Order: sequence, then C-alpha cells, then structure tokens
Amino acid sequence: MKQIDSISYPIYFNSIAEKLDKFIEDGKYSRFFILTDEHTALHCLPLITDKVNPDNYDLLEVSAGEESKTIDFCIGIWKMLIDFDADRNSLLINLGGGVVTDLGGFAASTYKRGIDFIHIPTTLLSQVDASIGGKTGIDIDNLKNIIGTFTQPKAVFIEHAFLETLPARQIKSGTAEMLKHGLIADADYWHALKNSNLEKPEAELVYQSAVIKNKVVTEDPSERGQRKILNFGHTIGHALESYSLDHDKNPLTHGEAIAAGMICEAWLSHQKCDLPAADLDEIVSTLLAIYGKYQVKEASFVELRNIMKKDKKNQGGKINCSLLTKIGDCRIDNICTDDELCDSLRYYAQLEYARV
Amino acid sequence: MKQIDSISYPIYFNSIAEKLDKFIEDGKYSRFFILTDEHTALHCLPLITDKVNPDNYDLLEVSAGEESKTIDFCIGIWKMLIDFDADRNSLLINLGGGVVTDLGGFAASTYKRGIDFIHIPTTLLSQVDASIGGKTGIDIDNLKNIIGTFTQPKAVFIEHAFLETLPARQIKSGTAEMLKHGLIADADYWHALKNSNLEKPEAELVYQSAVIKNKVVTEDPSERGQRKILNFGHTIGHALESYSLDHDKNPLTHGEAIAAGMICEAWLSHQKCDLPAADLDEIVSTLLAIYGKYQVKEASFVELRNIMKKDKKNQGGKINCSLLTKIGDCRIDNICTDDELCDSLRYYAQLEYARV
Ligand SMILES: NC(=O)c1ccc[n+]([C@@H]2O[C@H](COP(=O)([O-])OP(=O)(O)OC[C@H]3O[C@@H](n4cnc5c(N)ncnc54)[C@H](O)[C@@H]3O)[C@@H](O)[C@H]2O)c1
Ligand SMILES: NC(=O)c1ccc[n+]([C@@H]2O[C@H](COP(=O)([O-])OP(=O)(O)OC[C@H]3O[C@@H](n4cnc5c(N)ncnc54)[C@H](O)[C@@H]3O)[C@@H](O)[C@H]2O)c1
Ligand SMILES: [Zn+2]
Ligand SMILES: [Zn+2]
Repeated sequence: MKQIDSISYPIYFNSIAEKLDKFIEDGKYSRFFILTDEHTALHCLPLITDKVNPDNYDLLEVSAGEESKTIDFCIGIWKMLIDFDADRNSLLINLGGGVVTDLGGFAASTYKRGIDFIHIPTTLLSQVDASIGGKTGIDIDNLKNIIGTFTQPKAVFIEHAFLETLPARQIKSGTAEMLKHGLIADADYWHALKNSNLEKPEAELVYQSAVIKNKVVTEDPSERGQRKILNFGHTIGHALESYSLDHDKNPLTHGEAIAAGMICEAWLSHQKCDLPAADLDEIVSTLLAIYGKYQVKEASFVELRNIMKKDKKNQGGKINCSLLTKIGDCRIDNICTDDELCDSLRYYAQLEYARV
Repeated sequence: MKQIDSISYPIYFNSIAEKLDKFIEDGKYSRFFILTDEHTALHCLPLITDKVNPDNYDLLEVSAGEESKTIDFCIGIWKMLIDFDADRNSLLINLGGGVVTDLGGFAASTYKRGIDFIHIPTTLLSQVDASIGGKTGIDIDNLKNIIGTFTQPKAVFIEHAFLETLPARQIKSGTAEMLKHGLIADADYWHALKNSNLEKPEAELVYQSAVIKNKVVTEDPSERGQRKILNFGHTIGHALESYSLDHDKNPLTHGEAIAAGMICEAWLSHQKCDLPAADLDEIVSTLLAIYGKYQVKEASFVELRNIMKKDKKNQGGKINCSLLTKIGDCRIDNICTDDELCDSLRYYAQLEYARV
C-alpha cells in the first residue's frame, strides 16, 4: 500500500478497504455525500458502500460524459446539497472519472464557500491526471474548464481495481497522459511504459505516473510557471478534440486527441527546441502504433487555429506551447506562429499510417 | 490619505485620484473591466473613468438590487468576459455596493480559475463591511450567499465622496454595521458613533469601522472561530430580513433587520452571557431611536425559526449565536434553544415604540 504526499493532502494507493472509513471518521464530518455518474454508480459504488456506514451518507448522480460538466449540472448538485441540508462540515466524495472529479470539486469548493471533498478517480485518466493537482472546473458552451477554482481535495484514493470495468478505449485514453508524463519528465519511465502491456497498465506504472504529475503540481500549485510542462501536446490536442467533437460522429477521446497533439508538438519541438530527430522518430512511431492516425485536412487548419486562439492559457493573444528538448525534458513558454502551427499539422497529415 | 493592510492586500482611503491609475499600471494587466449596477454606472463611474485610460477597459453592468446576486447574472458576467476575450491576466474592478462586490468577486474568483479583482465599494455598508474580508457570494432561491468563495481582492479603494449620492435609507443601513462593530469590539467607538451625526457619517468614523472589520477578518480569514463575532445580530436579523422580503411591500433593508436582530440578541446576551442590564438598556434605546420598531407578531415566530434553521452557519442542526458579554466584547458559539429565540422575539415585540 503506497502513499504520496501532495500539496496539502495524501494520495493513497489501493487503500480504500483499509483507510477510507477511518479517513471519514477522523474528519468528524456531520454527513457525507457520494457523487457518481451513471456508470460509476453501477461499477464502482458497490466497492465503496461496502466499506462505509450506510446511515451516514446520501447519493448524488449525474449523467455520464463531458455534457455533465456544465453549470446546469453544478447547480443541480448545489440544490441537492441544499435539499439534503448539507452543512459546512459535510464531505463530498467524488467517485468517477475526470468529469465527476472536476465537476464535484467545483461544486464543493463553492458550496457555502467551500466544503471538504475527496476524489476517488475511477478512470485511468483521472487516476494519473485529473484527480491530482487541485484544478476543478466546468465548461461553458464549447470552452473547456473556462470556469473553476484551484482547490485541493482533502485526499485522493487511487484504486487499481476500478480499471477492470473500464472500457478499452478509456484505458487507451489514460495511457496517453502516462506517456506524456514520461516524455516531459522521465525518459526511463517512457521506455518502461512503452514496452509494457498498455492494454492492462500495471499498478506500479500507474503509481509512477501519479508521482510524476504530483511532483510537477506540488512545485507550482497555481500554474505560474513550470506546471505548464503538463500542457505538452495539449495546445494542438485540445483543438483537435474540440474540432472532432463538432465534426465527427464518433469523436476522438481526450487521449487520442492528445496523442495526435503530441506528434505535432514533437515536430515543433524538433524545429524550435532542438529535439533530436531520433527522439522525434521514436515518439511518432510509438504514438502512431498505439493510436493510429486521425484524418486531418488542410481545409480544417483555419478552424483549428481559431480554436487554439481561444485557449485559456494564451496571454495577450499569443499561442504558447510547452515543447520537448529531448525525451524526458520539457521547456515552457514557446510562442508559436500561425505558420508554425499549420506546418506541424501538415507534418502530421502527411505521415503514412492507417486511419484509427 | 489613509491606508490599512488587510490579509494580503491594501485598503486605501480617499486615494482613487492618486493611486488607482498607478495600481492598474503596476499590475501590468492585459485589460481591465469595470462592473457596475445601473445606479453606480450613473453616480460613481464618472469619478473612475475620469482617472483611467479609456482605451483599456470595457464596462459590464447588472441591474441594481439583491435580485442580481444570482447564478444567472454570474453566468452573464462570465459570458461577457469570454466575449471580450478576457485572459488570465485581466483585472475586474467591482464598483458598487455589496451586491456588485459579492457578485463580481465570485465571478472573478472562478473565471479561468481566478483572475485578479479589486473592490471600489460605493455604499456605506460595503465600505465598512462587504468589501473587506474576502467573502464572495451569490444567492440561490432565497438562500443568501449559499454559493461563494473566500478570495481576497488585490486592493480595496474606499472613497467617502461616493456617499454623497447614496439615499438616506442606505446610509442608515450601513450605520447598523458600524454600530455593531462598536458593540462587538470597541466601546469607545460605539459611544463616539452614537453621539455623532449618523445621517452624514464622518470619514474618520467610516475609517475606524473598516479598521475594526479588517482586524477581525485578518485574524481569522476563513471563519473558523473569532470572526463569527461579526454575526452578532445576524442570526435573528437575517431571519427578519428574509421574512420581511417575503411578506412586506416595502421590506426592511439589511441594516434595519440587523438593528432589530441586535436588540433580540442583546436580550439573549443579557440572559445567557451576563450582558449588564444597563448595557442592554443603552443598546435598545439607541437602536430604537435610530431604526424605530418593526412589527413582528407571535404568529410569525415559527416561520422565523424555520428560516434560522437554514442558516449557513449552523452545524449539526443547532442554532448558534454570537452574543455580547458587555458593550465592546462578544463571545462566539452560544447555542440557543427554540424557546430562547422565541423569547427574544417576544421581548422585542413588547417593546414600546412607534412602527418604522
Ligand atoms: N482537473 C484536471 O487537472 C484535469 C486533468 C485532465 C483531464 N481533466 C478532465 O477530465 C475529464 C475527462 O476525464 P475522463 O477521461 O476520466 O472522462 P469521464 O469522467 O467522462 O469518464 C469516461 C467514461 O468512463 C466511465 N467510467 C468511469 N469510471 C469507470 C469504471 N471504473 N468502469 C466503467 N466505466 C467507467 C464514465 O462514466 C464515462 O462514461 C475532462 O473533462 C477533462 O477536462 C481534468
Ligand atoms: N461579503 C461580505 O462580507 C458581505 C458583508 C455584508 C453584506 N454583504 C452583502 O452586501 C449586499 C448588500 O450590500 P449593499 O447594502 O451595499 O446593497 P446594494 O449593493 O444593493 O446597494 C444598495 C443600493 O444603493 C445603490 N447604490 C450603490 N452605491 C450608490 C451610490 N454611491 N449612490 C447612489 N446609489 C448607490 C445600489 O445601486 C443599490 O440600489 C448583500 O447582498 C449582502 O449579502 C456581503
Ligand atoms: Zn490531458
Ligand atoms: Zn450585515
């Protein structure tokens, strides 16, 4: 049973059976609430309710998917908490993927000016990424995480068992963030990971990925500087994700979009930050082998660039990328011109590979 | 020109002409936005726009009154900021009473996970109370401030000149909080204030009131303990305020309700915390002379008590009051029974005085 210390709270690994009940007891909460989506209510909730005193909590549920990460669902949660007479000394347990942890974290951080919450991430992506670092958020229209707070949970419980019911495509989506963690911070981890069985990531590799994310956010909790290395692949990846949501019947997952974004930004890294050609090749072939290739046409470049211009992380209208200097090292604040961004998409578009 | 230091920011007095422009310049903001309501747009905005570079900001306006302190108006502000392409390095200036500072503070503290904001309070109540201490908030249904954050502004500018256009009844509303500051923390201030011309409060007395509020919140920013002394008069006062909003054509202002609440809670203080009878008499006669008496009937006691039960500050269903031990000293966390609360209302109801 492992544990790491984050900004102001512990991250427990595979310790629910042993630690969750005690954590709640020690917190002397007046009541607690468990937020799930429809899938985690089915697959994950039993593992929790088994372990805790059933008289003491109420259940809140939202629909599954990004469509729930809105102010309307947030108002719904606030109103349920009001109806349940939740006082300031209540605890909210967010049991689900990044949608549930982002939405529940935001609702809790603003209810009565902030009640305690903990995350129990149930997707691979949320275990290695969304649940760590204190970002909460909701979307408005198509703008992802445009509203939110930086508020740390009181604890995170990462439980490998939840991955057993997670669909293969969701596992693959989370793997993209794990690969990113290797690329930006730890070459050894990248090599170990890419040679492992990515369809069933080992608990140890999940743990190491969480350690990397945690180290980065702990050193820069409010994203003034170095934390931005986590955005590698995300400037272009986010644009592809939004574009695909708007245009495709079966849109890209976050991880699939980020994988394509990492290829583009690895190419930019080679152009602007001296990423060696051998590293670029290794990244491209690894990611294409896992994720295949998304069909992106010259005709969509303008729309993609316009999406990038709306990115929350831009300042003064300039598009900023985090780029690699080599596998395992990343440099923040590289301003990229429109031409450079389009060229990177063009590079991606001409790669030879079968469509996903 | 005075200045006091709060939790993490300065409070400037009568220094807009000299300091506002420089403050904005030094902050190196990409843009700034001024939030007003319809009245402050008319009466207060000119004093600001006179002093700052007009190319650099945009105006946001909401309707006047508590009805604007809702999530709908907040969403309106978020969307305006999005439309104006406000980036993370933007500044929001909240120019108005407590409604504008609470609403604008909440919107800014959650937009892109928090942008800088400053308060320029334009009512007496917001100058001595709402703008100081970092509470932001909105109402849901009839629940006041049920959603919000603790987020400190980057500065507060308190300007006496704004009070010139403020209606007499709003002045009187603010005076109630000033009197409260004397009662809970400073007997000399209470005496000086009650003997001054309360229809035109002197700048020095406004300043001293802000100093008291600031001292209390600085010692307990997130209201774990001693900050609760500020709630003196508010347990019952808030209930009267909500009740009056629901039942009266011309409802009580916040200050009028708090004045009545302070009389009830002074009586409770006498019963439970040894507030001397002479102090009780002095408080009652002073407050009645200024605020007159609100007609409250035995038949409404149940409804009033039910409102108190919904109070954000209760824990475990118990109603908690901050009560005086003498003029100038207040003790937190006095649990009051239903009978005690009703008796205090009964005491108030039998006082002989003309209706407001
Ligand atoms: N806060 C952050 O720092 C951060 C970081 C990265 C991503 N995010 C956010 O995370 C969100 C994406 O998270 P996600 O990929 O976890 O998506 P998600 O929460 O939508 O989960 C994906 C799907 O898996 C289902 N599911 C979850 N756990 C399951 C389980 N154990 N078994 C079976 N099905 C299960 C869900 O119901 C959903 O249908 C995005 O909104 C993104 O913005 C936030
Ligand atoms: N955050 C806190 O710590 C805190 C503390 C106390 C009260 N509050 C909140 O403050 C709000 C009440 O504040 P308020 O009493 O300032 O009400 P308000 O903001 O509604 O202002 C009262 C009226 O005066 C008008 N006005 C404001 N400045 C004026 C000026 N200079 N000249 C002419 N008209 C002017 C307004 O347009 C409004 O019609 C409540 O919502 C309350 O919850 C917050
Ligand atoms: Zn990501
Ligand atoms: Zn008040």
